[in-house]
Amino acid sequence: MFVRNAWYVAAWTDEIGERPFARRILDEAIVLFRDASGTVAALEDRCCHRGTPLVFGRVVTQGLECGYHGLIFDGAGKCVLVPGGHLVPPGARVRSYPVVEKNQFVWIWMGDPKRADYSLVLDYPYHDDPRHWPHKHTVYRMHCDYMLVIDNLMDLSHLGYVHGGTVGGAPATHVEAKMHTTRTATGVKFDRWMLDSVPPPTYVAAAGFEGRIDRWQETEFFPISTVVQWIGAVSAGTGSLRNWKYEGDRSAGFSFRLFHGITPETATSCYYFWSVANGYRQNEASATEQLFNETARTFDQDKAILEAQQIRMLETPDGPLIDIHGDGPRIQARRVVDRLLAEENANAAGQPIIVSRSAG
Amino acid sequence: MFVRNAWYVAAWTDEIGERPFARRILDEAIVLFRDASGTVAALEDRCCHRGTPLVFGRVVTQGLECGYHGLIFDGAGKCVLVPGGHLVPPGARVRSYPVVEKNQFVWIWMGDPKRADYSLVLDYPYHDDPRHWPHKHTVYRMHCDYMLVIDNLMDLSHLGYVHGGTVGGAPATHVEAKMHTTRTATGVKFDRWMLDSVPPPTYVAAAGFEGRIDRWQETEFFPISTVVQWIGAVSAGTGSLRNWKYEGDRSAGFSFRLFHGITPETATSCYYFWSVANGYRQNEASATEQLFNETARTFDQDKAILEAQQIRMLETPDGPLIDIHGDGPRIQARRVVDRLLAEENANAAGQPIIVSRSAG
Amino acid sequence: MFVRNAWYVAAWTDEIGERPFARRILDEAIVLFRDASGTVAALEDRCCHRGTPLVFGRVVTQGLECGYHGLIFDGAGKCVLVPGGHLVPPGARVRSYPVVEKNQFVWIWMGDPKRADYSLVLDYPYHDDPRHWPHKHTVYRMHCDYMLVIDNLMDLSHLGYVHGGTVGGAPATHVEAKMHTTRTATGVKFDRWMLDSVPPPTYVAAAGFEGRIDRWQETEFFPISTVVQWIGAVSAGTGSLRNWKYEGDRSAGFSFRLFHGITPETATSCYYFWSVANGYRQNEASATEQLFNETARTFDQDKAILEAQQIRMLETPDGPLIDIHGDGPRIQARRVVDRLLAEENANAAGQPIIVSRSAG
Repeated sequence: MFVRNAWYVAAWTDEIGERPFARRILDEAIVLFRDASGTVAALEDRCCHRGTPLVFGRVVTQGLECGYHGLIFDGAGKCVLVPGGHLVPPGARVRSYPVVEKNQFVWIWMGDPKRADYSLVLDYPYHDDPRHWPHKHTVYRMHCDYMLVIDNLMDLSHLGYVHGGTVGGAPATHVEAKMHTTRTATGVKFDRWMLDSVPPPTYVAAAGFEGRIDRWQETEFFPISTVVQWIGAVSAGTGSLRNWKYEGDRSAGFSFRLFHGITPETATSCYYFWSVANGYRQNEASATEQLFNETARTFDQDKAILEAQQIRMLETPDGPLIDIHGDGPRIQARRVVDRLLAEENANAAGQPIIVSRSAG
Repeated sequence: MFVRNAWYVAAWTDEIGERPFARRILDEAIVLFRDASGTVAALEDRCCHRGTPLVFGRVVTQGLECGYHGLIFDGAGKCVLVPGGHLVPPGARVRSYPVVEKNQFVWIWMGDPKRADYSLVLDYPYHDDPRHWPHKHTVYRMHCDYMLVIDNLMDLSHLGYVHGGTVGGAPATHVEAKMHTTRTATGVKFDRWMLDSVPPPTYVAAAGFEGRIDRWQETEFFPISTVVQWIGAVSAGTGSLRNWKYEGDRSAGFSFRLFHGITPETATSCYYFWSVANGYRQNEASATEQLFNETARTFDQDKAILEAQQIRMLETPDGPLIDIHGDGPRIQARRVVDRLLAEENANAAGQPIIVSRSAG
Repeated sequence: MFVRNAWYVAAWTDEIGERPFARRILDEAIVLFRDASGTVAALEDRCCHRGTPLVFGRVVTQGLECGYHGLIFDGAGKCVLVPGGHLVPPGARVRSYPVVEKNQFVWIWMGDPKRADYSLVLDYPYHDDPRHWPHKHTVYRMHCDYMLVIDNLMDLSHLGYVHGGTVGGAPATHVEAKMHTTRTATGVKFDRWMLDSVPPPTYVAAAGFEGRIDRWQETEFFPISTVVQWIGAVSAGTGSLRNWKYEGDRSAGFSFRLFHGITPETATSCYYFWSVANGYRQNEASATEQLFNETARTFDQDKAILEAQQIRMLETPDGPLIDIHGDGPRIQARRVVDRLLAEENANAAGQPIIVSRSAG
């Protein structure tokens, strides 16, 4: 059901402090902790002695101590101590998952540890460049299949209907958007242009546009479950679109970057890690705060829709669905995921999934 | 499990305003809306594009617009617009249900639309006659099989046990009630007389009885799921009961009418649409309000009992049950429903269920 | 799944007052009530007429009256009255369970009533001796298999990890505890000594120890689901331990008695009846209150751990578990229960389980 040999966002680095931290990923109970040296490790959240979640324990010098009877496990999942100095029984270990901290994320590899290739972790340098891209991040728990969140991001025509009051604006603007979709080495990318259009409320609030704008959304899906966006606008007529390149200076305008990492919790729930970084008014903390708040309102709207959609899909698993004109990118993203799933199932001994290394 | 070729109460007309309104009926998700001309329509609450509930949308000139990507459906369920003027794919439609507004109700036909016969909708004129029958109505969501509510209404001996403090009064009064049960063209009717009895608290509060009363309850079950009652009392000795007719003037006394429309939500939950109309002190809004409040307290007591009964029945589906003396009308109502179910299952091409046309 | 031919704690006697009282035991819905003479009875909590829980009814002279239509059942479960003096149908009865009140408990026999032997009910005289053993009791509802509570009590090494702040104290103290386990006629007993150790916070608060202590926990498991403990401490060096006997005067010290009766509600939930009786400062109500509060805090900690453990066990029913050095008493208690279950399943006509008659 899930592609396992891939990197998923497990947490924001600032979620992992002094106490162990539990999260369910791909329907497995996992405990994350930062060992005495500050290195993050991820273990099965179930003591091999009596099945108690290790998240009730505490971090000690040798590793993570179970909060029930005191067994200690190191970051590789090996039991290194039974209280009283008694024999550590053979087989006393819990599963360990490869993890890596990068760009404010803790990424986790859910498949065969031997196939974990750290060079395939996505680059997202904007999180580490607060001078040009100050950002704020959070995580939502969504009661829906993670693919419904991907679907949502791959069809932005919903902005006029779901987000009219924030980032959307008038539906007609979206209906008339110019779309250009391409396949990348591993995923799908589409550019969307709304030239000479009326700015939506969030843009006016953020950048003070007074007239019409040339507005873009560049969206790229990186399998297995990341979508990154560069979104912005300049005053209409700043340039012109030719062969899907905007000939004109976009640097002076208003733009922001959205990161979306969607990690399955179960088949019908997921964690939605998102950040927004403003490429304007970088010296004003209030600009970042304001954009974050508008984005949160926007994603709250998505959450309501997607969770209701999930309920209907569960009720009518075989109900007919039709495709319409705007479904191209969404369908292509689904095809990528379906192909990866099929490959993984067909060839358990195959190569790791190739994940494009840079969104920067 | 449910008789489908029948009219059920879907909503009170005043529940359907400017925004679409969702309700699950016979375990199907339905959205009701009032189109630009004010006509109510009922559609499957699931967009045929991505499965999103249409209740998140809004009413526009052409019909109901999906709140996710803007497809528009007319009252017959046909998709009449895909945003951007793109092709409406063949098969782009959702199920539509026949509905009719009458006597403050929205009735819905859950079976084959071709068999929907509008002339079979129950008449309940009291709702439209506020001068003689001012009324107040509401809807309860009950966590029980709708038939448990029908059962409850068809055995009024429970009044002395469940509703002693409101409409019941002393158990002994109910034990000694005279009962007369008849089969009607389509359902079951029973009259219940408590002659020369002590008035229960609700009656005293409403009508100021000082002495004993002759008290009646005329109850009729109209399949598939409606029960109507005319209930009242006059001072004891106003008349006498002969051949189940009360020879004496009941018009000057205290009486009220109860409407009970019980619509299955799922196999173990239902909507209980009820109204109470007072045939006394018609010029006093407080009399209607007081009677409504007493009735609500009474039905809250039923709700607690029936929901607990449902839990036990689910736990012990094959547990033995016995019938007692007072079960006659209840058993007859069950037989009617069972026969209709059997007929519908046996003869999918048969005639619509005949529903008596008038309770007025 | 459960041993049925055994006495379980159904309630504290003070829980059964004038109104009927419902509790689910071994996954059966039971109603307890005190009849007109004050004798407690236990019936199936489901009227044989319409399946309504009898707990909605009331106690009358003849027995328990159903709150829906007024049938009355005596303490043996026989329907003795149908309202109106109508015929009581043959077979109108509900299941009745043997019960006995003793030592503040209502014990219930869940198996074949003919095999209920009242002489096998546990003696726990401390509850009836407030001069020497003033006590306070309560009941917790735990969302876990009752055996996880038994497990918890049979491995006290958890005190250093789960209860450091109350009755535990330093983990090292527990690691070094001396243990002596024996099989009793029907169950398992173990003594645990922490000689010359630092007193934990609860002990200091209760008894004002200023120096090190000799500390003991005597724990006995009585099948099917009772654990009794005598726990205490004297100043270190008061005596010495020889052949598992403490040669020295324990009577002047600090000690208390814990009763634990764990009754399955369902396969994954249970009722935890517990009391604590102080054998010190018996004239001070505040001493009892303080010890009870500390114990409640302690058992709240257990509750959190055990309920989380239950969740993991449900998720990974076949997940591997290993045994460690301290698991001896726990494993022996499990063996006793498994043997009783096997015997009951193999020999439905066999002898009642022998339950040791005295913990006093």
